[in-house]
Amino acid sequence: MGSSSAAPWKQLLIGSIQANSHLKHYSYFQLATISPNSRPSNRTVVFRLMISSTAHLLRYAGISLNREQFRISGPVDVIDGMNPDPVKLQQREKSWFACSLRSRMQYMAPTPRVSVYEQASQTQTPSLDPSIGPVGAFCLLVLDPDQVDYLNLKTNERLIFTSGLGVDGEKLWTSQNVNP
Amino acid sequence: MGSSSAAPWKQLLIGSIQANSHLKHYSYFQLATISPNSRPSNRTVVFRLMISSTAHLLRYAGISLNREQFRISGPVDVIDGMNPDPVKLQQREKSWFACSLRSRMQYMAPTPRVSVYEQASQTQTPSLDPSIGPVGAFCLLVLDPDQVDYLNLKTNERLIFTSGLGVDGEKLWTSQNVNP
Repeated sequence: MGSSSAAPWKQLLIGSIQANSHLKHYSYFQLATISPNSRPSNRTVVFRLMISSTAHLLRYAGISLNREQFRISGPVDVIDGMNPDPVKLQQREKSWFACSLRSRMQYMAPTPRVSVYEQASQTQTPSLDPSIGPVGAFCLLVLDPDQVDYLNLKTNERLIFTSGLGVDGEKLWTSQNVNP
Repeated sequence: MGSSSAAPWKQLLIGSIQANSHLKHYSYFQLATISPNSRPSNRTVVFRLMISSTAHLLRYAGISLNREQFRISGPVDVIDGMNPDPVKLQQREKSWFACSLRSRMQYMAPTPRVSVYEQASQTQTPSLDPSIGPVGAFCLLVLDPDQVDYLNLKTNERLIFTSGLGVDGEKLWTSQNVNP
């Protein structure tokens, strides 16, 4: 057990991503949340590594890389166009323009989970001006990790990284070697 | 939208598993649950297809197969050795013997998530009699699906199967074509 103000799991994760970048499915991860009806919900999403300038925000949640597993958890900030924080709005816009045009078009698709018969079919394919900023449906999800559970299936090593607050209110990480 | 007492998604899933059985990672899936501290929790587990004789119990939760996604949800019955139902105890025992000896040994490993320093290291490798039934730590998880969300990323078709009760109290499945 040790403590550090730098996130010690981050180098582990970045190294693992780089070592596995030749794998096709490395860019997907699973994001688990709790639905309004109190049920666990899960989906496979595209992994877009974007480390913010504040260096402690990463936008993902749980990653399996070859024989290594990272289970990252923490509160998620959902940033839509109505967010009062100009810095967050800027992050959202930056993420929008970082998406391909094809990805951006997906946010103009008919409402997910609505019956295909209920919604009037569009008479024409929506067009999108590449210079236009994020559409209303586009939200940026920022996960602020407070626990990272790392499992190496090759060595059977398991490390749990937990964040707490230091005496000056700064984020402090501790790590612990636990049984797999 | 239609309704049926047979589970219409099951054939879809079995077909997809068979079509993808050549893929190495087809035997893993993600299981999301809610932790006692009300957080979503996720883990990758080995997929063991076991259809019970009652034909509506399947023991898994969420599967991604190549370009098809199945998100299966429903209540989970955790069957341990203290379960009062003899049929369930028998299912648990059957699952135990269906595991390889190596898999069974894992249930005799030191308690997961406990510090490697806290638990006294074992002086000898535990041995396991192949004819002995399930150890105390072995639980069988039975998921009784009440919703299956199917997404085909090739055709962009999405189907939501939902179960309800028929007039005679039997399980009835309805399906709906929805926007992806």
